[in-house]
Amino acid sequence: MGFVGNMVVAQSGGPTSAINATLCGVIEAALEAGIKIYGAEHGIRGVIDNQITLLNPIFDAEQNRALLKNTPAAFLGSCRYKLPEAEDKHSIYEAIFENLENLGITYLVYIGGNDSMDTVYKLSAYAKKYSKNLTVVGVPKTIDNDLAGTDHTPGFGSAAKYVAATVKGIARDSAVYAEKSITIVEIMGRNAGWLTASAALARCGTSAAPHLIYLPERRVSREKIIADIEACPERNIIIAVSEGIRDEKGIYYCESETSCFDRFGHAQLAGSCRELECLLKEHFHYKTRGIELNIPQRCSSYIMSLTDVNESVQIGYEGAKAAIAGRGAIMMGFFRSSQYHIEIIEMDVSDIANVERTVPDAFIAENGSDVTDAFIDYARPLILGEPVLIFEDGLPKHIAL
Amino acid sequence: MGFVGNMVVAQSGGPTSAINATLCGVIEAALEAGIKIYGAEHGIRGVIDNQITLLNPIFDAEQNRALLKNTPAAFLGSCRYKLPEAEDKHSIYEAIFENLENLGITYLVYIGGNDSMDTVYKLSAYAKKYSKNLTVVGVPKTIDNDLAGTDHTPGFGSAAKYVAATVKGIARDSAVYAEKSITIVEIMGRNAGWLTASAALARCGTSAAPHLIYLPERRVSREKIIADIEACPERNIIIAVSEGIRDEKGIYYCESETSCFDRFGHAQLAGSCRELECLLKEHFHYKTRGIELNIPQRCSSYIMSLTDVNESVQIGYEGAKAAIAGRGAIMMGFFRSSQYHIEIIEMDVSDIANVERTVPDAFIAENGSDVTDAFIDYARPLILGEPVLIFEDGLPKHIAL
Repeated sequence: MGFVGNMVVAQSGGPTSAINATLCGVIEAALEAGIKIYGAEHGIRGVIDNQITLLNPIFDAEQNRALLKNTPAAFLGSCRYKLPEAEDKHSIYEAIFENLENLGITYLVYIGGNDSMDTVYKLSAYAKKYSKNLTVVGVPKTIDNDLAGTDHTPGFGSAAKYVAATVKGIARDSAVYAEKSITIVEIMGRNAGWLTASAALARCGTSAAPHLIYLPERRVSREKIIADIEACPERNIIIAVSEGIRDEKGIYYCESETSCFDRFGHAQLAGSCRELECLLKEHFHYKTRGIELNIPQRCSSYIMSLTDVNESVQIGYEGAKAAIAGRGAIMMGFFRSSQYHIEIIEMDVSDIANVERTVPDAFIAENGSDVTDAFIDYARPLILGEPVLIFEDGLPKHIAL
Repeated sequence: MGFVGNMVVAQSGGPTSAINATLCGVIEAALEAGIKIYGAEHGIRGVIDNQITLLNPIFDAEQNRALLKNTPAAFLGSCRYKLPEAEDKHSIYEAIFENLENLGITYLVYIGGNDSMDTVYKLSAYAKKYSKNLTVVGVPKTIDNDLAGTDHTPGFGSAAKYVAATVKGIARDSAVYAEKSITIVEIMGRNAGWLTASAALARCGTSAAPHLIYLPERRVSREKIIADIEACPERNIIIAVSEGIRDEKGIYYCESETSCFDRFGHAQLAGSCRELECLLKEHFHYKTRGIELNIPQRCSSYIMSLTDVNESVQIGYEGAKAAIAGRGAIMMGFFRSSQYHIEIIEMDVSDIANVERTVPDAFIAENGSDVTDAFIDYARPLILGEPVLIFEDGLPKHIAL
């Protein structure tokens, strides 16, 4: 355990509804330890560029920490920046360590996805090689749930709840008319179908929607989708598709040559649901509509999972504690024992960085157009509970830097 | 006042999050009056086809009425059916009145939009002409807020709250990166910009988004949109556009010839935001994304306005009471006095049917790319308050027929 110094925290990668809950947990651990907690703006870029703000004056107030948990997207800003190898860009590493040393920072907690864990790994390796006093801990976040070594990722539960609740509402909406219809709902997750699979949680006693689910883990031909729809007895069919589904040749639907062209004949990237909408409209000749859930999947703080929010706070808190205890080069994770009991664990970050975890076979139905009960058992606990939200003037109240 | 008979209620037109709250109010008035309350499925079609269900056994239970208010989209189903003139299709009217008489129904409450008020008008005229014992009352609903004679429509407040809360989250999401970006949010309302205007409610102490707002009430050229963006000092610009915005020639952006074509060169109807996304990407060469809020605007029961839900119940209740009191051929409405006090009023339905109310000049900024403070003052009270929601297995619980 090194000299007890100060801590810096940063956020990186795509935002989630719960990434600020994790930030809150980090801050709480630092406040508890009585050290200064700094925030770097826009991820590691803020450390490089010395855009670092002292957070204690803001978050000493409990009400601001409550607002932080109520605010979607990264409070500190984010970046999509891959740290170069130290051999190639030594000067960047020198800038980082100089800026940290100037503020007496010996702990860095990095909240992010795959690329962020790569940053944790590189900084840890550099600190070790050059005997720098810096302990770096990675805390995961991603709505995509595609990180290895953890049962699930903070942020996934809230996004899954958003997807399932929204598909449930869309299913009600589509069922009001007596005429046949097809509704295609496009869900995020280009290579990993976790979030698309979560649409299955919408099923309840009064609705079997979504009736078909297509994940990026299984290639699916246009002929199979049409045959699946023809075999579906429902009047108003709801189909959940990943943005990243591919046909039998491995070509993304969203990059298909039957997609849109501009007036000069250049292919325009449309969504999977738009491509399917065109295809199914032409084939079935009845009402067909595509709905891309889009960015609201990751920034709708008005429908969050309390389980996710609580776990996100907790993993941030434990990550900061691990850093203070001198355990670096790790990523924090969740371990699930039976009956949904979650323990927070630590793992070597080198095992994690740049590994993508897709939906396993056991969670995908044999027919390739549904999930299994085992998936439902896995995912249901993650969306349970609703946090008490803070509203102002009729809208969720946020806090901003 | 006629013979105290039974009542039938039906729902018509596009669903909203609060249309079942109005149904709940109608049911409560009928239960209070001690009469039988029937529900016709899929609007007036259910009366024609004799698909009529007794609702008392379901909704005698208070918990089911609570669930009804928690359920988006029309519980009884809906239709988009315009009743023909009695002269042209006498047989349809005969079927309607025969089916109603068989069940001892003398009151009909029709919850719907413009076309539904046309149905109320025609049925009332027919009943009067042929001395039928039927009192028909229309209760408005539409997220579009485009009905005349009422301060606002039930369902609008919840949709406006959804739009503003979602734009607020999207603004947070877009602000996380240090790079410049443009986000175009497409909002429902083809001819009336009420819902698009409501995006302005997202502005708060920590964000001025949306920075530009384009309503269908003002034509806007591509050049003006580009100039507006160039004049906007923000790093991450949020633009709210109606699905129905038109250019200076009056051509819908969504039907523009710069839009998408299929591989045979046929124009594909894309959304306004997609058209703008292509245009602005080409012009500005930095990150530009389009988000179509789509159907979730009208079926997301997890973010509703308590004001809207309460008023929706109340206007249904008063509508049913008016019918029982023998006052037919009317549409119910809201009258606002100062300090946001709402009274429920009645008006001759013939003044209302087929009239479309657009956003008045006083609510549109002179520069054509914003709303006025007067609009904010008008709309803010409509989104206030949050109902206590009922969740089951992590999702809003619904009730279905």
